[in-house]
Amino acid sequence: MADSALVLFDYWRSSASYRVRIALHLKGLAFKQHSVHLVRDGGEQHASSYRDLNPQGLVPALVHNGQVLTQSLSICEYLDEQFPEYALLPPDPLSRARARALAQTVACDIHPLNNLRVQQQIRQRFSPGKGEVVEWMNHWVSEGFSAIEQWLSRSSAMGDFCMGDAPGLADCFLVPQVYNAERFGCDLAPFPRIIEVTGRCRGIPAFAAAAPEAQPDAPVE
Amino acid sequence: MADSALVLFDYWRSSASYRVRIALHLKGLAFKQHSVHLVRDGGEQHASSYRDLNPQGLVPALVHNGQVLTQSLSICEYLDEQFPEYALLPPDPLSRARARALAQTVACDIHPLNNLRVQQQIRQRFSPGKGEVVEWMNHWVSEGFSAIEQWLSRSSAMGDFCMGDAPGLADCFLVPQVYNAERFGCDLAPFPRIIEVTGRCRGIPAFAAAAPEAQPDAPVE
Repeated sequence: MADSALVLFDYWRSSASYRVRIALHLKGLAFKQHSVHLVRDGGEQHASSYRDLNPQGLVPALVHNGQVLTQSLSICEYLDEQFPEYALLPPDPLSRARARALAQTVACDIHPLNNLRVQQQIRQRFSPGKGEVVEWMNHWVSEGFSAIEQWLSRSSAMGDFCMGDAPGLADCFLVPQVYNAERFGCDLAPFPRIIEVTGRCRGIPAFAAAAPEAQPDAPVE
Repeated sequence: MADSALVLFDYWRSSASYRVRIALHLKGLAFKQHSVHLVRDGGEQHASSYRDLNPQGLVPALVHNGQVLTQSLSICEYLDEQFPEYALLPPDPLSRARARALAQTVACDIHPLNNLRVQQQIRQRFSPGKGEVVEWMNHWVSEGFSAIEQWLSRSSAMGDFCMGDAPGLADCFLVPQVYNAERFGCDLAPFPRIIEVTGRCRGIPAFAAAAPEAQPDAPVE
């Protein structure tokens, strides 16, 4: 299947975009990028031209052969079904369920509480004191990472990566969340397995190519 | 495959539990229920006996043949792979992606911002004024439902249900979120398609059997 028709609408620092970029690079798929700046001009994701594409006004969105796909997890599953050559999910249902549960702990229980729009709503609605928004964010990272760390420590499936000896779906979700956690100064010392897996992932070209600072819309330092 | 070995750890009012109950009933699978009371004694989900099962301390958890599964979306995907007879997901990758994106709009962008532990954290950290927590909750319902309503209105896939003429994954996630929205007095008038689909689902025995008030741990009115 021609993969030249993949266009990713993303933003360098969006961690949901970062997940999909890792998946695309792991699969060796060529794709074009269209930057949606989440801050400039009040947020380009709110522009009607982008809302026409994704009514949620969130990144990423992936256009494949003219069809728009949204939600990073759904996009990764789609890529795994359409381009199975490098599989993000293992073959057996139980292992697939475990990999998805790890990814969803990030996607459903950590990141939704910490993203930009939630920070903005907290500031507008509750007038938090200095540092309170960062404390809020670190609370959810700590809750979610504690569970992931425990799963990794008791799982016979953990190898060099979250599930086995090759990076997969869970790693695509974990690494961007660690990036966010570091950015907001969360203490990661209690999570040695998470640090270990993340370090290993960062040494892999697909992860390096997907990193925020490597994106064309990242600011020049 | 014997399905007598399915045990669901749930709570009548937990909307993530409600999703999995619908999926189990749609598939006609027999299961035992083990109630985890989210309020009594400071929350039974925090007890070490339950954390041993699910380190996240969240419901639901499904035990199948002695293996513990967590995260409602992952559990539904697992059920669809293990018990394919009533399929929750359509066969083609694009339709699967659309169904998952609808489910994830609920699971990643509405519900995580509104569940019990988040309400508790907002109250503890930000001392919100009267009614402000309910306004916060309704904001996220309104954001997410606006996008879902638009998707349904432009989708050629919408039939009597979110995707086609039989209930599937997206409906399993939508109906419990509507239940929550009604409970907190959110105005649903702007979402006629969501109301229409939900009404149709409620007329189906699998959805009725999964409803909060029909559960063995629901309080007697």
